[in-house]
Amino acid sequence: MTQSVRTRLSPAERREQLLDLGVRLLATRSLDELSIDLLAEEAGISRGLLYHYFGSKHDFREAVVRRAADDLIAQTAPPVDGEPEERLLVSMAAYLDYVVANYEGYLSLVKGAASGNAALRAIYEEARAALTDRIFREDAGNQILPDTPAVRLVVRGWSAMTEELVLTWKVEPNGVTREELIGILAGSLRPLVEATLLQP
Amino acid sequence: MTQSVRTRLSPAERREQLLDLGVRLLATRSLDELSIDLLAEEAGISRGLLYHYFGSKHDFREAVVRRAADDLIAQTAPPVDGEPEERLLVSMAAYLDYVVANYEGYLSLVKGAASGNAALRAIYEEARAALTDRIFREDAGNQILPDTPAVRLVVRGWSAMTEELVLTWKVEPNGVTREELIGILAGSLRPLVEATLLQP
Repeated sequence: MTQSVRTRLSPAERREQLLDLGVRLLATRSLDELSIDLLAEEAGISRGLLYHYFGSKHDFREAVVRRAADDLIAQTAPPVDGEPEERLLVSMAAYLDYVVANYEGYLSLVKGAASGNAALRAIYEEARAALTDRIFREDAGNQILPDTPAVRLVVRGWSAMTEELVLTWKVEPNGVTREELIGILAGSLRPLVEATLLQP
Repeated sequence: MTQSVRTRLSPAERREQLLDLGVRLLATRSLDELSIDLLAEEAGISRGLLYHYFGSKHDFREAVVRRAADDLIAQTAPPVDGEPEERLLVSMAAYLDYVVANYEGYLSLVKGAASGNAALRAIYEEARAALTDRIFREDAGNQILPDTPAVRLVVRGWSAMTEELVLTWKVEPNGVTREELIGILAGSLRPLVEATLLQP
């Protein structure tokens, strides 16, 4: 049955399906643990076929990480309607849940990007830029976030802070609840920007 | 002349002097570029003697990084007197200047700690913990910073944010001045903590 479904997929569809599987495997594993062998075993197909789809181990990992970054951006999209603060709250809740659900893979991406792996760094930076740009785009007319170099810098810093908060909380929640943390993540942006605009 | 000064130093003093030289070399170099060979050349002594002082290449690098972290903590100590906000401003100015003056070494420590090098990670975490503890200790009676798990978490996040801001600004200041950035670094802590305390 599985076989008959599989054979009806085009090569492009099959590749997408394998990428999805790679992302799922990455949720509970580091990038170093994500191998062609593992994917072959989980997908029930040959290593040779996987090399046909992905070229090399590095290309495969890069493709999986790129897909994971796209998933993160899609899943944290704020709702279309609602007050700005409420929409940011929904987006940050999705971010928190994404990082918690994909902790091992996310952490290994952060580490890989920081350690100077150029391909991972590029994907990480692109994703961060997309998330930051969206923050500015979502603020119609830039009423809350004037688009100045200082505010751009601070939004980037806020982004690094939210990542640190979620990764630390995942390991040591110390009694801080999910709701409290989401409130901190979303509620910190506006005061930070206001404090920035107070600078002469 | 140098030789006669050198011979009057005790082995412990000589080791300290070599560590200082190592920290100076690290200011404009990454950890990977900091070698026993380089130190031997700069200090004008044999590699064998350096191995005698430091044991191994790894022990040498670890000792230099530990010394650099101690320097950072010492140099960013806030003044004893003054209003809390003013003292934080002085401390953050020192932090900014330290990172800018020691950019290559600092960046390689951040990368090394993030990439999972256990020894570097430990030194980095110890330094961050020391800086965070000092923030709470400096706030007499915890008037601005109630010592709760949520505030502890947020101060850690703020610390990650300040690091991101300074490292990004060093590469792309985009017209943001040193004074403006120092104001942002110091002025962001209180609003962040206040926003945290607003969470139910």
